[in-house]
Amino acid sequence: METKTILIKDITILNPDLGNVKEFQGSVLIENDKIAKIGNNINESVDKVIDGKGKILMPGLVNTHNHISMNLFRGLADDLELNTWLNDHIWPMESHLNSNYCYIGALLAAVEMIKSGTTTFNDMYFYMGSVAQAIDKAGIRGVLSYGMIDFGDEEKREHEFKENIDLIKDFNNSANGRITCRFGPHSPVTCSKELLERVREEANKYNVGIHIHMNETQKEIKDVVDSTGMRPFEYLNSLNFLSSDVLAAHCVWLSDNEIDILKQKDVQVSHNPCSNMKLASGIAPVSKLLNKGVNVSIGTDGVASNNNLDLFEEMKFASLLQKVNDLNPEVLPSNQVFNMATINGAKALSLDKDIGSIEVGKKADLILLDKKSINMTPDSKISSSNLVYSANGSDVLTTICNGQILMEDKKILCLNEDKVKSLANEAILEMKNL
Amino acid sequence: METKTILIKDITILNPDLGNVKEFQGSVLIENDKIAKIGNNINESVDKVIDGKGKILMPGLVNTHNHISMNLFRGLADDLELNTWLNDHIWPMESHLNSNYCYIGALLAAVEMIKSGTTTFNDMYFYMGSVAQAIDKAGIRGVLSYGMIDFGDEEKREHEFKENIDLIKDFNNSANGRITCRFGPHSPVTCSKELLERVREEANKYNVGIHIHMNETQKEIKDVVDSTGMRPFEYLNSLNFLSSDVLAAHCVWLSDNEIDILKQKDVQVSHNPCSNMKLASGIAPVSKLLNKGVNVSIGTDGVASNNNLDLFEEMKFASLLQKVNDLNPEVLPSNQVFNMATINGAKALSLDKDIGSIEVGKKADLILLDKKSINMTPDSKISSSNLVYSANGSDVLTTICNGQILMEDKKILCLNEDKVKSLANEAILEMKNL
Ligand SMILES: [Zn+2]
Ligand SMILES: [Zn+2]
Repeated sequence: METKTILIKDITILNPDLGNVKEFQGSVLIENDKIAKIGNNINESVDKVIDGKGKILMPGLVNTHNHISMNLFRGLADDLELNTWLNDHIWPMESHLNSNYCYIGALLAAVEMIKSGTTTFNDMYFYMGSVAQAIDKAGIRGVLSYGMIDFGDEEKREHEFKENIDLIKDFNNSANGRITCRFGPHSPVTCSKELLERVREEANKYNVGIHIHMNETQKEIKDVVDSTGMRPFEYLNSLNFLSSDVLAAHCVWLSDNEIDILKQKDVQVSHNPCSNMKLASGIAPVSKLLNKGVNVSIGTDGVASNNNLDLFEEMKFASLLQKVNDLNPEVLPSNQVFNMATINGAKALSLDKDIGSIEVGKKADLILLDKKSINMTPDSKISSSNLVYSANGSDVLTTICNGQILMEDKKILCLNEDKVKSLANEAILEMKNL
Repeated sequence: METKTILIKDITILNPDLGNVKEFQGSVLIENDKIAKIGNNINESVDKVIDGKGKILMPGLVNTHNHISMNLFRGLADDLELNTWLNDHIWPMESHLNSNYCYIGALLAAVEMIKSGTTTFNDMYFYMGSVAQAIDKAGIRGVLSYGMIDFGDEEKREHEFKENIDLIKDFNNSANGRITCRFGPHSPVTCSKELLERVREEANKYNVGIHIHMNETQKEIKDVVDSTGMRPFEYLNSLNFLSSDVLAAHCVWLSDNEIDILKQKDVQVSHNPCSNMKLASGIAPVSKLLNKGVNVSIGTDGVASNNNLDLFEEMKFASLLQKVNDLNPEVLPSNQVFNMATINGAKALSLDKDIGSIEVGKKADLILLDKKSINMTPDSKISSSNLVYSANGSDVLTTICNGQILMEDKKILCLNEDKVKSLANEAILEMKNL
């Protein structure tokens, strides 16, 4: 089943290019897991040729904030006040989770991501060993962290470190390098100062990054201000926690001083527009962050608050939300948003040496789209326009990760899609009856 | 090719029900253009049986504000300040329009609507005779008006009335009743008082409705206030223009007094969230309007400012935008949004005796969706949740309008999809070279 060399011939290539998008006609040669050549006259004999006529080739999308096992919870509860949603619906269901359910939820999410063109995701949740096994099997690229919560309890804290360190020991750089790991302190509200300080130390020791929720709701910021006298990023800065290896999800409510700290410490941001809108958290000041030179990427958050993992849809939400919030149609143009969902995402996860753009020597994480799909007709003057404003995940034809074809012409090759769906339906039914 | 009787068997039926959604398992018998029976034991022998297992049946979606020939302009220009966008891109291209281009653009839009589950649309544009011919051929339901603009010029005004009245005479109640017509005064800024007053008279005389743009931008409202001393709805009210046969698109910026007028006069609203966001017009106070009892429906506006006609996506935008604007996750729950895109749309176009819900005696305007699609897995507790928050137009399998199957299992039957796309690509290329 493994294909060693693939030639994608005569295709329209879209590549992030210093905040803009470069478009050209060409062919791409894949050797094993890497892009070996890009050009117009590649004549190598290969195991497989993909005809690129009428198609677009672009980097696989990078989803920088997710909780993929929550895919089981799609549509479990919506349209509720945050505390009701958490206390009465999400938390009770999470108490029934086990490694098998998390494995199935992760497979379901993997199918959804492959179908909609996401090849890399950044995750934080429980039973992450099961998630790693699902991702190993599914063939996509994942950055995994355990969601650490101690609420100041020392025993719980020890347990959380053991979980996250075991994850790192067992799975960091596994699955041919597709899986890397991080520490996942949940947020400055749910984690003690002791936990956060030790996360910084251990992250340095294990040479891994950090994935954390920051400044999502006004309530949470008030709680941090009340207990520390500082706003969340000021507080983390005072602990010397912040650095370019920190991926901060949400970042909805930010003071000017916090924005300066983000820039100074090169903190990486994951913008999650659908989740922030659906939970009524607020609107992140993305255009301001980008103007300041902060690296902003895009994430869906878990489906329970989205309710899908379609990054094409998320790109449209990101752009349109910012335009109406700023009352300025010029902010977040399609080329910039295309960058946010590709190379900015790679940078946000410290993976930009390997992924996020189509370059010789980078990993072959690539997707092909149908230029002739109804959402892509007519061709637009600026190709990213149709991708960001009109397309959705269903326009993806073929998904390649680490040089392996995971979906071809909309057929998933790496997993049995029907079986994954029925396992998921059975799992959530069982959990509801527990 | 015409099928007279169709039985859709054992399907999950979702139907608007007094602002809520009723869900039940059943079968639906279609005879000619109408729904003849709904029940569990329908044993008629029929021309065609559709197996509903694993599928959802719901009313075809109603798009209450569009300019469908603009489908040729998808991606023509984005991310620009409104005047630059209009003056340098849209208007120059519109000056090249002719009846052939408008016909092709309308066919392209019809394919897109059929594929994404819209069976009725409300349109205002130029060369509407060509649009009517395209819609006759395509098999969907359209409410057509000519975009009247006089800027106070009497000669132009006469011309506009001739165009719109000819449209009504030639096409109102044509195509087996699928095409109805309205007057389309463009807006209170582009139309004189004389034009607006005469529209009211002629609409009464011809017994047709009115389709108008209202309160889209702050600038436009300022212009009306400057010239009349009144806000736009106050001004139209002073002309006795307003009534339940008036469909007002956008309604972004409304004073409390204007909202009272909308309610009092039973004016019908088309909410266009993507267009309002993309052009940075503002956020319509939809939850406030709904609370006051105003009928709010959903429209995409033309693709030039969207950039697609996917009402499933538009439903998600409508709900999420309102939640974040109100900082209240409870507003516009999925069942309410499902109503907005179906029965509210039908009401907004005075077509609710015929369409907008699945009832015996109503027209058979129906769509089938795949419950097993990845966006619909697992089943949600409230079925409209997956439809509004997770699905997109690509989850539609089969589209039926006026009892005719226009698309079956994603294959368009009524038109040659590939030919329509290549005609559209050629047309926009020609126009760009003019
Ligand atoms: Zn999260
Ligand atoms: Zn319009």
